Amino acid sequence: MTRAARPDLTPLLRHGCPPGPHDTITDVAGVRVGHTDVRLGPAPDGAHDVVTGVTAVVFDQLSGERRSLPANLAVGNGHGKLVGATQLVELGALETPIVLTSTLSTFAAADALVDWVLRRPGQEATTTLNPLVAECNDGWLSDIRARAITADHVHAALDGAQGGVPAEGAVGAGSGMVCLGYKGGIGTSSRTARLGDYAVTVGALALTNFSGDLRVGSLDLAAGAVLGAGGPDDAHGRASAATKEPHTQGNSCIVLLVTDAAVDARQLRRVAQRGVLAMGRVGAAFTHGSGDYGLAVSTAPPAPARPDHELDPLLAASLEAAEAALVRSLLEATTTRGQRGRVAHALPWSALGLER
Amino acid sequence: MTRAARPDLTPLLRHGCPPGPHDTITDVAGVRVGHTDVRLGPAPDGAHDVVTGVTAVVFDQLSGERRSLPANLAVGNGHGKLVGATQLVELGALETPIVLTSTLSTFAAADALVDWVLRRPGQEATTTLNPLVAECNDGWLSDIRARAITADHVHAALDGAQGGVPAEGAVGAGSGMVCLGYKGGIGTSSRTARLGDYAVTVGALALTNFSGDLRVGSLDLAAGAVLGAGGPDDAHGRASAATKEPHTQGNSCIVLLVTDAAVDARQLRRVAQRGVLAMGRVGAAFTHGSGDYGLAVSTAPPAPARPDHELDPLLAASLEAAEAALVRSLLEATTTRGQRGRVAHALPWSALGLER
Amino acid sequence: MTRAARPDLTPLLRHGCPPGPHDTITDVAGVRVGHTDVRLGPAPDGAHDVVTGVTAVVFDQLSGERRSLPANLAVGNGHGKLVGATQLVELGALETPIVLTSTLSTFAAADALVDWVLRRPGQEATTTLNPLVAECNDGWLSDIRARAITADHVHAALDGAQGGVPAEGAVGAGSGMVCLGYKGGIGTSSRTARLGDYAVTVGALALTNFSGDLRVGSLDLAAGAVLGAGGPDDAHGRASAATKEPHTQGNSCIVLLVTDAAVDARQLRRVAQRGVLAMGRVGAAFTHGSGDYGLAVSTAPPAPARPDHELDPLLAASLEAAEAALVRSLLEATTTRGQRGRVAHALPWSALGLER
Amino acid sequence: MTRAARPDLTPLLRHGCPPGPHDTITDVAGVRVGHTDVRLGPAPDGAHDVVTGVTAVVFDQLSGERRSLPANLAVGNGHGKLVGATQLVELGALETPIVLTSTLSTFAAADALVDWVLRRPGQEATTTLNPLVAECNDGWLSDIRARAITADHVHAALDGAQGGVPAEGAVGAGSGMVCLGYKGGIGTSSRTARLGDYAVTVGALALTNFSGDLRVGSLDLAAGAVLGAGGPDDAHGRASAATKEPHTQGNSCIVLLVTDAAVDARQLRRVAQRGVLAMGRVGAAFTHGSGDYGLAVSTAPPAPARPDHELDPLLAASLEAAEAALVRSLLEATTTRGQRGRVAHALPWSALGLER
Repeated sequence: MTRAARPDLTPLLRHGCPPGPHDTITDVAGVRVGHTDVRLGPAPDGAHDVVTGVTAVVFDQLSGERRSLPANLAVGNGHGKLVGATQLVELGALETPIVLTSTLSTFAAADALVDWVLRRPGQEATTTLNPLVAECNDGWLSDIRARAITADHVHAALDGAQGGVPAEGAVGAGSGMVCLGYKGGIGTSSRTARLGDYAVTVGALALTNFSGDLRVGSLDLAAGAVLGAGGPDDAHGRASAATKEPHTQGNSCIVLLVTDAAVDARQLRRVAQRGVLAMGRVGAAFTHGSGDYGLAVSTAPPAPARPDHELDPLLAASLEAAEAALVRSLLEATTTRGQRGRVAHALPWSALGLER
Repeated sequence: MTRAARPDLTPLLRHGCPPGPHDTITDVAGVRVGHTDVRLGPAPDGAHDVVTGVTAVVFDQLSGERRSLPANLAVGNGHGKLVGATQLVELGALETPIVLTSTLSTFAAADALVDWVLRRPGQEATTTLNPLVAECNDGWLSDIRARAITADHVHAALDGAQGGVPAEGAVGAGSGMVCLGYKGGIGTSSRTARLGDYAVTVGALALTNFSGDLRVGSLDLAAGAVLGAGGPDDAHGRASAATKEPHTQGNSCIVLLVTDAAVDARQLRRVAQRGVLAMGRVGAAFTHGSGDYGLAVSTAPPAPARPDHELDPLLAASLEAAEAALVRSLLEATTTRGQRGRVAHALPWSALGLER
Repeated sequence: MTRAARPDLTPLLRHGCPPGPHDTITDVAGVRVGHTDVRLGPAPDGAHDVVTGVTAVVFDQLSGERRSLPANLAVGNGHGKLVGATQLVELGALETPIVLTSTLSTFAAADALVDWVLRRPGQEATTTLNPLVAECNDGWLSDIRARAITADHVHAALDGAQGGVPAEGAVGAGSGMVCLGYKGGIGTSSRTARLGDYAVTVGALALTNFSGDLRVGSLDLAAGAVLGAGGPDDAHGRASAATKEPHTQGNSCIVLLVTDAAVDARQLRRVAQRGVLAMGRVGAAFTHGSGDYGLAVSTAPPAPARPDHELDPLLAASLEAAEAALVRSLLEATTTRGQRGRVAHALPWSALGLER
Repeated sequence: MTRAARPDLTPLLRHGCPPGPHDTITDVAGVRVGHTDVRLGPAPDGAHDVVTGVTAVVFDQLSGERRSLPANLAVGNGHGKLVGATQLVELGALETPIVLTSTLSTFAAADALVDWVLRRPGQEATTTLNPLVAECNDGWLSDIRARAITADHVHAALDGAQGGVPAEGAVGAGSGMVCLGYKGGIGTSSRTARLGDYAVTVGALALTNFSGDLRVGSLDLAAGAVLGAGGPDDAHGRASAATKEPHTQGNSCIVLLVTDAAVDARQLRRVAQRGVLAMGRVGAAFTHGSGDYGLAVSTAPPAPARPDHELDPLLAASLEAAEAALVRSLLEATTTRGQRGRVAHALPWSALGLER
């Protein structure tokens, strides 16, 4: 896939921080992304009963001598099954790659992640491990009770993780997600900033499955006037009010922020919080049933943390990267047909004034 | 003051929940608001060196037999001096009116609030009390080190609290606040919803002093094209980049949500969280130095709490009421001249397509 | 096994709250306990390479119409892999039985628990579920990397859960645990109290695997003078300093408190906290690597929660029940031989002045 | 006062970590303690209607260029009026000395603390400040509604703070406190440990006002047999059951831990938690109305934090120092006569087998 069509969102989102070279989470050195797509029960029209998958974010810094990276968590709305939360907060440490998947497969994925790490060179004596697995509920498009994710799927995403521009949209854990009335999924972005004397990068990866009405910069996608006649109608562009109802149970959003800035785990909670807060910028409804989490990781070598009063550029970059990743998850997603004849339509780029 | 000019923001904000009768926090029965304006050191051009004040929110339900109301807190960014936090969270109980004021006067205000409550009938035997006082930093417009708030100021706000449409904008605790590049201050709103079989109301009161770029529905006030030729320019409408700098230390936002819904303290934390999340909708930058807090109180008589899966309409109403109160704090604020020749300009209504 | 030998600990622990009929967690109506013991790799001397298992606590109140019970969590030291934490805190709701097991099998157990619940009558439409699984690390006695727990083991514990006096000590999840230098495992207890006009019961179940020096009422087991000549020596009674070293990685303690009192989830956090605080009473060292959690559940039918100022008898009963369950886990445990020739010796009852 | 009578508690408490040179919080370099005793309404028998005061802990490291120290908080039971909590947690930073006082004077003391800091050299431009003030409720012995603490009292404690062995027992904020049925107040201690390659010290200061039954090492003071004939009887040694009742409202405990170890704010929360957990070791009842807080501060120069897996010696030293400070607050307190003929008796040293 050429990714030439991937648009620069900074003018649209009125962002002040410049993106990194690819405007992806992999702009942070050592970060790799892998996806496994799982499609079962194909039907003639391209639909599947099971439309799900796994996404893995792997950190090169975690191999070798280094057994953990500073990391933390912000809970926007805790109606989710995040695995690894209490130890992540207590120790401020990420010990494994991060795996994203479908709600009811969360624990099988965590078990597979443990298995994968225990088999790595240097882990022969490991007898305790805190896997980090997050999820959204793809049960509207996909038969979630099939619990289709296997250890092989998880291992494939981990083993296949690579740098460069990752696949986005309806891929990996994003395969069956629906967001703001459109097809959601995986989006990534990056922003750069000066933190004291240092140039730093923040990369974001969002898994989007939440309800609300999309706002993009000065565009309010809930407003018919903006979408105009050329925009999606209920049949083709947006899930109608009637079909949106089933989305509301267990929907969620995960925003992962990774930075090469030397910040400690307490400060990373502040960064992670910006991942949650960015959801408000794009129109999230923050419903009862949404499991909305921000995660943040620092890949910097051990060093004294920067003082908090220097953090504003990093916090701004985090907010902007998160917002861009959220929007990207919609822009890159393709119309997807799932169980029971359900269809999640892609957001038309024209609605945002973009040309594909 | 006739408040006839107070506009309906629901079309602008694309809100789905209808406002209460006055679209104010006082639409919730038993809620009263009082302000004390403090202006010292007058200068010929209408400027003051001290432009500060106190706002009190009083709950009729707290008088008589009832010694506390269910209440809770959400911390968006804890760079603030909120008094009463840990006991509020532990017991989920509000024991006093809520007082808002200027940062360095927070503790004098808390002491005055304790004094006021201890003198109330029925409090003769009280030997412990948890006052709730929140603050924003008005030190850009006002000489905050003067610490001008006295016990009399606090008592006047408490004694003067009344129902009906409260004064908004540059009044009480909002006197010296600056928000999103314009004059901020106090804003209120209300939204109604169905919670199971019950019609409920959520009232919001916001004290706004945070940085960012205002977004109002489909309008992005950071975008020159939207504001157009009739909009504010740097000299007259928005603080310039140069003058915005001093705002950033210690700026903050308090969003209070009050509902007559029968919800318990744990659920009120969820409501309070929507107060914080609403800040993202209007363009908050969530900077390091901002003390951003959501507070939530239920005035309902003791009753079994509604189940959480029924809460979505309440959460939506909370988010919408908070957003409207935030915007209102700007719309109702008047251009204010403070210390050192500094001026905070009112947001021109025309920028939002509104006529005054 | 006759359980006649099970001693009354109230005089020893100087407890003021009377126990329930059996002094077990199952004194709370509707609570059942099941264990699966897993022993693999037998050796001639009764040792096993794998000495692990599963314990399930099942709530009759969770069947039928009722889909959750009020519940909450207190984290004493979050170095543990507790599954279900963030949703438990957000919603204050327990949706499944509680499963306890060995650290590296936590996620396989959670997956099996989800599977078990989804197959239950009335769960045909369930598409989201928050399993609650807690763990301690039995990797000193047992080959934890074997990850021997299967779905069948978990299902057997769930299916076999029953009322009456549960097996305690080196059973189920407690099979391979070591505590305070002796063989630890599972202990239960109950205490009764008056909560306003109501007689209520608190049941406790502890899974013990933590380090420190045992204190039991006026007895300090770290003091040689107390243990005297008849007490354990290093060879037969207590793990020696040399052998205690390996215990320290990943040790943990789970204290579950269940009450029939009408308390809400916020109040249950306060109850759960007493489970953690009780650990201090028996001499816990609260080391870095210990995952110490309190869990609390109410089985009461939906009703207005009792006011907090009435809670003291419940909190006292919770503290005492937890302390007794912790001590019981040692008293009921039998000397156990595990991997690499390691032996965890039972605490001699005589050390506590008790006769078996 | 010669402090020669101050006993070594390590044998009694079976502690493994050696104390610092004076076994006081001031063993940590740069830490100074000051007290103001407030006694009003004297009666012929040495009683006072008001028996209260202020204790200040001042950090030399906070003067000059350094504007904050790493610090954090653990809430054991949040029924207290701690000022400064949310910013302390967000930034992990202590910006002022720590002031302890009586509940209803908390906010006047916080205001006085702000005033004191703003007048310090180098603070001329300070426009925001987060004072840290904690309290216990001395309303049983003292007329707490008199709210007798003035700014002068607070300033005197701050100005008078000094190194060396601080006064303990019924002094400063400890003047009117009652603990475990005896006269409580202020106690301090220190322990030393090896943290990786570094020798570090932890100092503790406790303000004790909580209920329960004292346990000291192998002694259980609730057990008559231990106290024996030479121990206190109800008339002279322990508050009777009847007189203990009034203590239960608003009682509390503050445990401050200060270390010269290079640990960050997240790790200091872990240290602070040991302050709370130590309360269980000495028999705390952890009642509903108790405001139990741990605070922790690092005085180390900025440096990379030690890894968590090296923290066990520091955590052990923190637990032991806290336990010793708690016991010391009783041992050093003298029998005190307060309002309404109430008397809080000193714990007889003989009850612990100590000779004065």
